[in-house]
Amino acid sequence: MPKRRTLSVALIGTKFMGRAHSNAWRQAPRFFDLPADIRMAAICGRDRAGTVRAANRLGWERAVTDWKAIMVDPMIDIVDICTPNDSHAEMAIAAAGAGKAILCEKPLARNVAGARRMVDAVKRARVANMVCHNYRRVPAIALARQMIDGGKIGDRIYHFRARYAQDWIADDNFPMVWRLQSKIAGSGALGDIGAHSIDLARFLVGEIAGISAMSETFVKRRLTKNRQFARVDVDDAVSVIGKFRNGAMLNLEATRFARGRKNQLAFEINGSRGSLAFDLEEMNRLRFYDASDPEQMRGFRDIIVTESTHPYVVNWWPPGHLIGYEHSFVHTVADFVKAVIAGKKIEPDFADGLKTQRVLDAIQRARPLSLL
Amino acid sequence: MPKRRTLSVALIGTKFMGRAHSNAWRQAPRFFDLPADIRMAAICGRDRAGTVRAANRLGWERAVTDWKAIMVDPMIDIVDICTPNDSHAEMAIAAAGAGKAILCEKPLARNVAGARRMVDAVKRARVANMVCHNYRRVPAIALARQMIDGGKIGDRIYHFRARYAQDWIADDNFPMVWRLQSKIAGSGALGDIGAHSIDLARFLVGEIAGISAMSETFVKRRLTKNRQFARVDVDDAVSVIGKFRNGAMLNLEATRFARGRKNQLAFEINGSRGSLAFDLEEMNRLRFYDASDPEQMRGFRDIIVTESTHPYVVNWWPPGHLIGYEHSFVHTVADFVKAVIAGKKIEPDFADGLKTQRVLDAIQRARPLSLL
Amino acid sequence: MPKRRTLSVALIGTKFMGRAHSNAWRQAPRFFDLPADIRMAAICGRDRAGTVRAANRLGWERAVTDWKAIMVDPMIDIVDICTPNDSHAEMAIAAAGAGKAILCEKPLARNVAGARRMVDAVKRARVANMVCHNYRRVPAIALARQMIDGGKIGDRIYHFRARYAQDWIADDNFPMVWRLQSKIAGSGALGDIGAHSIDLARFLVGEIAGISAMSETFVKRRLTKNRQFARVDVDDAVSVIGKFRNGAMLNLEATRFARGRKNQLAFEINGSRGSLAFDLEEMNRLRFYDASDPEQMRGFRDIIVTESTHPYVVNWWPPGHLIGYEHSFVHTVADFVKAVIAGKKIEPDFADGLKTQRVLDAIQRARPLSLL
Amino acid sequence: MPKRRTLSVALIGTKFMGRAHSNAWRQAPRFFDLPADIRMAAICGRDRAGTVRAANRLGWERAVTDWKAIMVDPMIDIVDICTPNDSHAEMAIAAAGAGKAILCEKPLARNVAGARRMVDAVKRARVANMVCHNYRRVPAIALARQMIDGGKIGDRIYHFRARYAQDWIADDNFPMVWRLQSKIAGSGALGDIGAHSIDLARFLVGEIAGISAMSETFVKRRLTKNRQFARVDVDDAVSVIGKFRNGAMLNLEATRFARGRKNQLAFEINGSRGSLAFDLEEMNRLRFYDASDPEQMRGFRDIIVTESTHPYVVNWWPPGHLIGYEHSFVHTVADFVKAVIAGKKIEPDFADGLKTQRVLDAIQRARPLSLL
Repeated sequence: MPKRRTLSVALIGTKFMGRAHSNAWRQAPRFFDLPADIRMAAICGRDRAGTVRAANRLGWERAVTDWKAIMVDPMIDIVDICTPNDSHAEMAIAAAGAGKAILCEKPLARNVAGARRMVDAVKRARVANMVCHNYRRVPAIALARQMIDGGKIGDRIYHFRARYAQDWIADDNFPMVWRLQSKIAGSGALGDIGAHSIDLARFLVGEIAGISAMSETFVKRRLTKNRQFARVDVDDAVSVIGKFRNGAMLNLEATRFARGRKNQLAFEINGSRGSLAFDLEEMNRLRFYDASDPEQMRGFRDIIVTESTHPYVVNWWPPGHLIGYEHSFVHTVADFVKAVIAGKKIEPDFADGLKTQRVLDAIQRARPLSLL
Repeated sequence: MPKRRTLSVALIGTKFMGRAHSNAWRQAPRFFDLPADIRMAAICGRDRAGTVRAANRLGWERAVTDWKAIMVDPMIDIVDICTPNDSHAEMAIAAAGAGKAILCEKPLARNVAGARRMVDAVKRARVANMVCHNYRRVPAIALARQMIDGGKIGDRIYHFRARYAQDWIADDNFPMVWRLQSKIAGSGALGDIGAHSIDLARFLVGEIAGISAMSETFVKRRLTKNRQFARVDVDDAVSVIGKFRNGAMLNLEATRFARGRKNQLAFEINGSRGSLAFDLEEMNRLRFYDASDPEQMRGFRDIIVTESTHPYVVNWWPPGHLIGYEHSFVHTVADFVKAVIAGKKIEPDFADGLKTQRVLDAIQRARPLSLL
Repeated sequence: MPKRRTLSVALIGTKFMGRAHSNAWRQAPRFFDLPADIRMAAICGRDRAGTVRAANRLGWERAVTDWKAIMVDPMIDIVDICTPNDSHAEMAIAAAGAGKAILCEKPLARNVAGARRMVDAVKRARVANMVCHNYRRVPAIALARQMIDGGKIGDRIYHFRARYAQDWIADDNFPMVWRLQSKIAGSGALGDIGAHSIDLARFLVGEIAGISAMSETFVKRRLTKNRQFARVDVDDAVSVIGKFRNGAMLNLEATRFARGRKNQLAFEINGSRGSLAFDLEEMNRLRFYDASDPEQMRGFRDIIVTESTHPYVVNWWPPGHLIGYEHSFVHTVADFVKAVIAGKKIEPDFADGLKTQRVLDAIQRARPLSLL
Repeated sequence: MPKRRTLSVALIGTKFMGRAHSNAWRQAPRFFDLPADIRMAAICGRDRAGTVRAANRLGWERAVTDWKAIMVDPMIDIVDICTPNDSHAEMAIAAAGAGKAILCEKPLARNVAGARRMVDAVKRARVANMVCHNYRRVPAIALARQMIDGGKIGDRIYHFRARYAQDWIADDNFPMVWRLQSKIAGSGALGDIGAHSIDLARFLVGEIAGISAMSETFVKRRLTKNRQFARVDVDDAVSVIGKFRNGAMLNLEATRFARGRKNQLAFEINGSRGSLAFDLEEMNRLRFYDASDPEQMRGFRDIIVTESTHPYVVNWWPPGHLIGYEHSFVHTVADFVKAVIAGKKIEPDFADGLKTQRVLDAIQRARPLSLL
C-alpha cells in the first residue's frame, strides 16, 4: 500500500475569503474521505498582529507576512490565493514557478492579459490549478449539471438567464472600499458577482459566442476613511444579453443596487423538454419542470437537495438537514485535494478562468446602446 | 339632473380577446358604478354562423360580418377592436373618422407607421381612444404605480426588469398559427407579450432612452393545417437591455420557449429605498421591500392585494378573495366608460401605444451582438 | 329533439353570498354549455329599496320582499338560499314542499336537528338539492379529488390537515355582527369556515369516525351599532383532532384570529405514495409530491391548474390565465343545472350537509381538555 | 487578569448526534469568542474500532468504550450525552455526581420519572446543565423570540401551531430501528421530533395548561436485521390540541409519514398585532406579519435572517450567506461554554427538559377520542 501523503497548505488572505477557505481546509478532512492528510501550515497576511490572530483563530500553524516566503518554502504543496484581484496573477505565477498546486479565488485576474499569463505559467509548470468558483459545487447546482447531462431538460437549450443581485452598496452613504476601485478590483459587480454567473453559464450550458452589454455606476463618488470623496470607477451594475455557441440565448444581470436581494444568484434554464431554476438565497433547493410529466400533473418540482443520492450530501447530515454557504468551499477543497493526489485535471481550472475572463472583458468593452 | 346616457358598443373579434372583452362589457355594470348604461349592440366576425353563436353566447344584440357596417351605424358610440394586429390601423382610422370612441387591443399596430396614422386619426377626430394594456389595471400593478408615485421605493429607480415567459409553442410539433406570421402579427413574442412589458416599463418607470436587443426563432418552420411546412418569420424570443431617460437600467425578456412558464409576466423594480416585484402567475400579490423598515425586520412583504383599500378591489369581494385574469379587462372597460362620459383623456391612449410601438420597432431593428 | 327548457331561479339574500350567486347564475350560461336556459326571475330581500337596487345591479327581473311568495310562485323552478344560517331550514322545507329544486348555502343548518328536517323534506318531496360547498369545484381541489381517486398518492391516506384562517375580527374593536351571535349563526368560525374544511375532508378522504376538539372566544364582548356591549357567544377559533373511518388522522383548525391570513383555507393530505397540498390564497395551484418519482428528482410539484385538461378550466381562458374566487360558484351552478335537468343526484347534497353538520355538532359538544 | 481556563469535554455517542456535537465543539472556538479554550478530550462509544475511527475523524484525543470511565476522570469538565434516550438518566446522574457540567440530547429522558431524577441530581450537585434543544438557537427562531419579547406581534398570543413532519419511515418496507422501539426510544415521532415542537412552544409562548391528543402507528410491524418481523410499539404520528396558561391555543403535529416533508418543523404564531411563521426547511428565513403596517402595504415579510444584527449571524458570513443545520449546535455549545464559565443558568436546562417531558407524558396518556 502506498504511503498516505500529507499535503501542506499555505493560504494568502485573512479576510472574508480567507476565513471561508480556512474553514474548508479544516472541515474537509472531517467530512470527506480525502486521499491525503491536510496540514494547515501557514496563513499569510499583510499585518503581523492580524495575521497571528487569524492563524490562531482559523487553525493555521504559522502566520506569515511575506507571501514570497511561502513560494520558496519547499514544505508547502498547495497555495491558496484569497487576496484582492490585482495580486492573483503575480502570486499564482510565482507559485507555479515554485511547483505548487494552486487554488485561486475568482475572478482569476483583473483582465485577460493577466489571466493568460497565469494560464501560461501553470501550463509550463504543469501544476494542479483551480479557480475557486465554489458555486459549481453547491449540491443543487451540481445536480442541475447532472440532470442537464442526463438529458432531463431535453437535447436543446433555449435560454439561460442569471441574475446576481445584492444591495450592500445601495445606500449612497456606504463608504469607499477596495471592491469599488478599478485598479484593485478590475471591475465592480461584474467581476465580483457577475463572474460567478458567467462561470455557471459556461458550466451548465457551454461557451458563449457573443454578447451585448451595458453597465452603470449609480453612485459616482463615495467617502473614504479620510472623509474625502473618491470616484467610484467600477460598475455598480451590468446587464448583458448574448448567445451561446449552441444557439441558446443568454441574459445576465449583476447588481449591487437591488434593495432586498442579499445574495440572490438566481438562474433559470429552459430546454426543449424541461426547465431548471435555482436561487442561492434558497441554496438547498432546485426547481425542475419536466414537460414529459402527464399533462395534468406538470409543475415545477421543488427538489430539496438534501438526499443522500444528491451530490456531496451523503457526507453531511441525514435527508432534510440543510447545509450553508461555506459548505461549497469544503466541496471545492475536497475535490481539489483528490485531483492533486490523482494528478488529474479539475474543473474549473485556470484555462476556464481565462475563458470566463474573456467574457468579462468583452462585457467591459461593449458598445453603447442604440438610442431610440 | 342630466339624463343618464346609454353607450352602445360594437366589438370586432370573436376569439380569445373577443370573449374577454365581451365579458368585460357584461360585467362592468354589475360591479362598477358606471356613469352610463352599456348596450352591447353588435359583435362582428368574419363567418356568419360563428358570429351568431358568439353573439348569443357572449350577450350581444346583433351579429355583424362586415366591420365597415359598424362604422357607418350612427347608433354605435364605442368600437372595441379585438382583431389580429394587421387590421387595427384600418379599423381604428375608420372608427375615428366616424366619430366613435375606440378601445383597441395591443399592440396598437404592426409598426410605427401604422401606429402614427392611428394617433393622427384620433387626434384629428378628437375621439376617446385607449389601447387595451389591461395589465395596468391588475390591482397589484395599479398599487405598484401608486406606491412608486408615493415615494415608497425612493426617489430614484435603479432597475426595471421584466420577463414575459410562456411555453405554448415550445413543442416543435406545435402547428403554424397567425401569431407566427409576420404579415399578420408584425412580430412574435415581442409584440404579443413583450409589448405588455414595455407598456408596464413605461407605466411604472418612464420613457425608454435606448436599447440593445437580440431575438431568436428557435423553430424555423411549422406545419400548417394543409400539412405543409411554412416558415416562421417572427421571433420566438427576444432579449433586451436598455436605459430609461431617468437613468434606470432596463432588462426585458419575452419568450414562448420557457417550459413550465404558462403566463409569467414577472417584473422587479429596485429603487433607492425599496423594491417591488410582481408575477402574473400570482396576480393577486405584490412583493414590496422597504429598506426603511427596522434592520432586523426587513424582508420582502407578500402583500395579498385583496383589501378594500387596494385599487378596484372594493367592487368585488371581501378581503382575501382572489380575482382572476378577466377582471383586468372589466377594470379597463369601466375606466374607459368613465373617461368617455367625462370627456377626459385616459391612459394608455393611442399616443402611448405609439410610444410603445417605437420601442418595439427599435428592438426589431437592433444591431447584432459583438462577437467574442 | 326535446324542447330546450328554461329554468326560472329565485334567489333569497342580497348580501355577499347573494352577489356571488347572482354572478354565478349570470355567468354560467356564458361559459358553460348548460342543458337549459336560465331565467333570473326574482331576488328576495327584507328591505324593498335595497332589494330593488340589488335586482337591477345583479340582473334579476323582479325584487321580492316576502320569501314565501317565491315558494307559491309556480313559475319558479329553483330556489337559491343565501340567507343567514337560522333561516335555511324553514325556507328549504317550504321550497321542498313546493317542489322546487334547492341550492342552499352552507352550513346547511344551525344544528343537526335542523339539517335532519331539511333532509327529510327534500327526500319526501324528491326535489333536487345541493348545499353550496363551492370549494369542491375550485379546479385545483377537483383535480386533487381526481388524483386521489386515480391512486396518485397511494392506496392509503395517513393524514388530512386543514386550516382555515382569517383575521377580519382579530382587532378587538371590530363591532358585533350577526356572524358572532349564536342564535343566528349557530356557531362562529366553526360553522362559517370550519364547515368548508369538514366538507373537504369528507370529499377528499372520507367519513370521520371520531373527534376531540376545543374552541375559544378570545374577545368576549363587542360593541353593537347602538354603542352597547353585547356578548360574543360563538367560537372565535376551534381546533380539532380526529380519525377517519379509513384510519387517516385528521387535524383541523378554523380561526378568525390569525393576523395576515386573509382567506387561508390550506390543506395537506399525505398518502402512502405521495402528498397533495392546497391553499385558497393561491387557489390556481396544487402542490403534488410523487414518491414514485426518481429519488434525485423528487419534490413538491407546483401545478398551475390552468390547463385545458384540468377540471372546468377549458370553459374559461387559455393556459396560464388565472381564475378567481367567484368562479367556483359558477361551476357549482353549472353542475347543479345539469343535475336538475338530468334528474340525477349531485354532490354535496343535503344528506352530505347533514353529515357535515353531525361533525360540527360533535365539535361543539366536545369535552374539555385533560389538564396537565 | 484571571488565567484563561481550558474546558475538557467528553462526548458519549458516535452516530448522527455524536457527529453533530463533535462538529460543534470543533467549530465553536473558530467562530465565537469563547471565554475558555476547548479541549476535545474523549469520545465514547460501545465498539472500540468504530469509536477509534470516530475519534480520528471527528477530532477527539481519545476513544473510550466505557462511559463510566469518563465520569471518574477528574480531567473532564463537561460531559456531552448523545446516546439513545434510555441511557440519558443514568449517565447524567453519574456525571452530576462527579461534578461535571452536562449537555444532554433531547428528549431529556424516557419519561417524567427519569427526567425528575436527572433534575434532582443536577440540583443537588449544582452543576451546569443543559438539554440540547438546538433549534432554539437557529437565528430565525432566536429572532422570533426577541420579536415576541419586544411586543412585535402584540401583547396577547392567540395561536401557536407547529408541525414537525418527516417521511423517512413512510415506506412500509423501511426496517426496524431503535427509534421504533419503546424500551429504548420511549416514544416515536412524539419524543424524537415532537419534543422539539413542545420545547419551542414553551420557549416562544409559555407553559402549557392542558392538552388532548391522539396518536397512531400506521405500520405496525417491520423487519429486523434478522429478517423477522418485530412489533413497532411507538407512535408513527401524534396530533395534539391544547391550551397555554396565557390563553393561547396550541395545535401540534409530529409525523414520520408525510411524503415529501423531509425535516419540516414549521410553526406559526398569531398575536394581537402580528404573526410569525417559520419552517426549518427554509431555516434562514422568518416570516413576519405586522398588522400595524399601513393597510395597503401589509403582508408577511420574508426576512432573510442573515444580517449582522440578527442573533449569532455576525460570527459567520456577510449578509445573505446562508448557514445550515449544524450551526444551531455550534451556537448551543458556544452559549453553554459561556454559561459554564460565568456560572450562570442557561436555557433550556434540565428543569426545562422536565417540563417538556411532562407534556410528552400527558400526550402519551391522553384519552381516546369522542366517537361520532
